[in-house]
Amino acid sequence: MSTPTTEVHNATQQQEPPAGRAVTKQLIVQKFGGSSVADADGIKRVAKRVVDAQTAGNEVVVVVSAMGDTTDELLDLAGQVTDSAPAREMDMLLSAGERISMALLAMAINKLGASAQSFTGSQAGMITDGIHGKARIIDVDPHRIRTALDKGNIAIVAGFQGMSRATNEITTLGRGGSDTTAVALAAALEADVCEIYTDVDGIYTADPRVVPSAQKIERISSEEMLELAASGAKILHLRCVEYARRFGVPLHVRSSFSQHEGTWVIPSAEDKITTQEGVALEQPIISGVAHDRSEAKVTVVGVPDIPGKAAAIFQVIADAHSNIDMIVQNVSTHGTGRTDISFTLPIVEGADALAALHAAQDQIGFESIEYNEQIGKLSLIGAGMRSHPGVSATFFKALSDAGININMISTSEIRISVVTHADLLDEAVRVIHKAFDLDSENEATVYGGTGR
Amino acid sequence: MSTPTTEVHNATQQQEPPAGRAVTKQLIVQKFGGSSVADADGIKRVAKRVVDAQTAGNEVVVVVSAMGDTTDELLDLAGQVTDSAPAREMDMLLSAGERISMALLAMAINKLGASAQSFTGSQAGMITDGIHGKARIIDVDPHRIRTALDKGNIAIVAGFQGMSRATNEITTLGRGGSDTTAVALAAALEADVCEIYTDVDGIYTADPRVVPSAQKIERISSEEMLELAASGAKILHLRCVEYARRFGVPLHVRSSFSQHEGTWVIPSAEDKITTQEGVALEQPIISGVAHDRSEAKVTVVGVPDIPGKAAAIFQVIADAHSNIDMIVQNVSTHGTGRTDISFTLPIVEGADALAALHAAQDQIGFESIEYNEQIGKLSLIGAGMRSHPGVSATFFKALSDAGININMISTSEIRISVVTHADLLDEAVRVIHKAFDLDSENEATVYGGTGR
Repeated sequence: MSTPTTEVHNATQQQEPPAGRAVTKQLIVQKFGGSSVADADGIKRVAKRVVDAQTAGNEVVVVVSAMGDTTDELLDLAGQVTDSAPAREMDMLLSAGERISMALLAMAINKLGASAQSFTGSQAGMITDGIHGKARIIDVDPHRIRTALDKGNIAIVAGFQGMSRATNEITTLGRGGSDTTAVALAAALEADVCEIYTDVDGIYTADPRVVPSAQKIERISSEEMLELAASGAKILHLRCVEYARRFGVPLHVRSSFSQHEGTWVIPSAEDKITTQEGVALEQPIISGVAHDRSEAKVTVVGVPDIPGKAAAIFQVIADAHSNIDMIVQNVSTHGTGRTDISFTLPIVEGADALAALHAAQDQIGFESIEYNEQIGKLSLIGAGMRSHPGVSATFFKALSDAGININMISTSEIRISVVTHADLLDEAVRVIHKAFDLDSENEATVYGGTGR
Repeated sequence: MSTPTTEVHNATQQQEPPAGRAVTKQLIVQKFGGSSVADADGIKRVAKRVVDAQTAGNEVVVVVSAMGDTTDELLDLAGQVTDSAPAREMDMLLSAGERISMALLAMAINKLGASAQSFTGSQAGMITDGIHGKARIIDVDPHRIRTALDKGNIAIVAGFQGMSRATNEITTLGRGGSDTTAVALAAALEADVCEIYTDVDGIYTADPRVVPSAQKIERISSEEMLELAASGAKILHLRCVEYARRFGVPLHVRSSFSQHEGTWVIPSAEDKITTQEGVALEQPIISGVAHDRSEAKVTVVGVPDIPGKAAAIFQVIADAHSNIDMIVQNVSTHGTGRTDISFTLPIVEGADALAALHAAQDQIGFESIEYNEQIGKLSLIGAGMRSHPGVSATFFKALSDAGININMISTSEIRISVVTHADLLDEAVRVIHKAFDLDSENEATVYGGTGR
C-alpha cells in the first residue's frame, strides 16, 4: 500500500540511544483497555506509543479491548431483540467489538509508517474450553503472531476472545479477559514483560478515592498481587495475576497517559531478584489494603448437619458457574442437628445462585436462604505477615477501636479479610491503612477502573 | 439455555397445511440486506419471516448483511485514523458488521422459540482467494451449516465475507458480496431456491422511478438477468446472477415487506421447464430496459496503432483491479499511425485506473487521456432478440426519433447497449420502454436499491 520502510528507518535513527548505552531488544506485550481506545484520538495516541516501543528496538505485541462504549452498545442491541440471548450468540456478538478496535489500531499504526497486522483471538491461537461468556484458556498457539513479529510487524491481538478446541466455536473469556489474553500471549511468546496500560499510574496501597494518602507500590510479588486482586483491587484482574504467576510473566502496570514507571508485579520465583540497578528488591511487610463492594452474603439456614451437605451446596453453586469467596460454617445450634452455612459471592451471580439453591432445596433439605448485598469486604495483604505475628492483633484492635463490627473473617498466610456492613467499609479501610503506617505525605492522583 | 422444543412444536401444529395438500420439504436460502436488518424492529421482523419458513416445514439458511449504517460508520471510523487503510485491516474491520447483525438475528429467532446459530464466513466454509476487499469465492465447504440443519437449527451466515485458502486471512467479497454468499451457499447445499429479499417486489421491465408504467417480470432466464444486471439493474448483482447461472440455482427476488411472489430467475438449463401449474414457461421477446449512471468513459488518445498496445492498456487497467465494460476502438485517423481507444468503467474505479494509465504513459506511448463522468448507459435485454432481426431497427429508430445522440454501442446476442449523455438517459429509457410495448396500465410500486 504505502512504503513505510523509509519512515521507520528515519524514526529509528532519530530515537537511537546515546552512544555507549547498550540497548537490549525485548519482546513486549502491551495491553490497552477500552478507555484507552475509546475514540479515534485515543487509538492514534495508543498507536504512537506502540510505534515508539518498536522504534526503541523491541518486538511488540498489542492486546486491545473493544472501544469505550462498544460493548454496552452491543449489549443494548441484544436487549432490544431478546431478554434471553443464547451464550453462543452473545459471544459472537461481543467479539465484534475487539475486531473493530484492533483493525483501527492496526490502521493507525500503519499510518505512522510502521507495519501492523491485527489478529482475532482464534487467529492468535487462543484456544479455550467451550463455556461461552466465561471461557478459560486451555492452550495458546501463537505461531501466526511469531511469524508476524519475525517479519518486522507489530501484532495486534483481540483481547477477551478465543476459540473452543472441541467445537471451533468463538468464545469470550469474561471478566478480566483482555488482561488474561495479554498475559497468556506473553507466557506463550516468552515475552520479557507484559505491560498493562490503564488510567492510573500503578497499584496503590489502598484505593486513593477512599484513602487520599495512599502510595503507589513500586514492586509487589505475584503472590501478594493475587491476594490484592482477589480482595477487590480493580486494576488487575485475578485471572491475569494467576496466569502471570503460574507462568512467571513479569507484569508492569502503568498509565497510558504518562511515561512514568508504574508498578512491577514480579513472579514469586523472582522474589529475590535484584533490580536493574543492582539493589536487592525490598519486600515490604504490608503491601496494601483492598476493599470490595461487589459481593453479597448468602446464608443457607438449617442445613442438616450430616456429612456431604456442605459439599452438595457448593456443588450446586459451582454448577451455576458462580464463584464463592469466603465461607463460614457455624456449629450446630441448640441440638437441632442443623447448622447455618454462610458464604459470599459476586452480586452479579447472586440471582442464578439463589435460583439454583432453591431448585435444590428438597434434595439438600435446608430450611431457608438469607441474602444480603449490603456488605463490604476489607483485606490487608502483605507477605511480611508470615513472620510478623503482631499483624492480626494490630488489625483487629484498629477496627475495634473504631467501633466497626465484623461479620465474617477469612485469612491466608499473607492476607486477612473481614466482612463489615457496607456503610462502614470506607472508614474501615482508612483505619487499617493508617494503623499499618501506609499513609503517604502526598495525595494520590486520580484512580479509575479498567475495561474488560 | 431455554427450552424451545415445545414452542416450535406448537408453531408447527398451528401452521399445518390443510389436509389433502402435499407439503414438500425444501432447503431454502434466504438473503436479507442491510436495510431489512437496520434496527431491532427490522431484525425481529426478519426473524419472524425466517421462523415462518421453517415452521412451514423447510430447512432454512439465512444470509445477512451488516445492519443499515454499520458499514458507513466503520468506514467513517477508519477515515478518522487513516487515509490509507491497508486492505487486510479494512476487511478485518468491515467483517465485524455482519457478525453483529447475524448474532442479533440468531438471538431474535431463538426468542421466537426456534433454534438458530450464526456462522462467520469462515465458519460457513466460504473459501476465497486472497484479494482483500474484492475476494472471489473459490470453494464452499458448508459442513457446519449442514450439521446445524441436520440438528433442526436455522443457520445464519454472515454475508460478504470469507477466508482466504492460502493464508487463512479474513476477506470480504466486495460489491454484491452478500448476494453472492447466498447463491454460493445455495449451490453448495443444493438448495431448492435462493430467495433474495429486498425492498421492492421483484425485477421490473425498467426502473419504475424513470418509467412509472414499468411492469414486474414474473420469470426471467439467468442469461437475460445477467445482461440486465450487467447493464445497470441494481436489484441483483452481476456476480450473484453469474454464480446462480453457473450452478443452476433458481433465484427468487422478492420483497421483505410482503408475501407476494416476486421475480423468479431461472437457470438457463431450465429455460424450458414447466411451472408448478404445468404451463410452459413463456419466454417474452424483450425482458426489459436497464440503465446505469455509475460508469465513466475513458478515452486514451493517440495510441500507437501497432499490435499489443490495446492489450497493454487493458492489462494496466486489469492490474488496477478495475472492470472495463464497453470498449470502442476508432480506426487510425489522418494517417498518423495513431488511434483512440475508448472504454467505460465504474466511476468509483476511475481515479485508480487513471493513475495506473498515467504511470504507464511512457511505456505505452499514448498522447493523452480524456475522462467523462457525464454519461449514461441504456440497455435493452431479451432472449427473443436472437430470432427477431427487427429489434435493432426499432431500437435505433426510437432513439433517433427522440433526437437522442449515441456515443458508444455494444451488443450481445440478447442485448443492445448504448451510451448517451447523462442528461438524456431517462428520456431514452422511456422512449425504448414504450417502443417495445413494455408499458403497463398500472403504476409500479416503490423502487430502491439493496445493500452489499
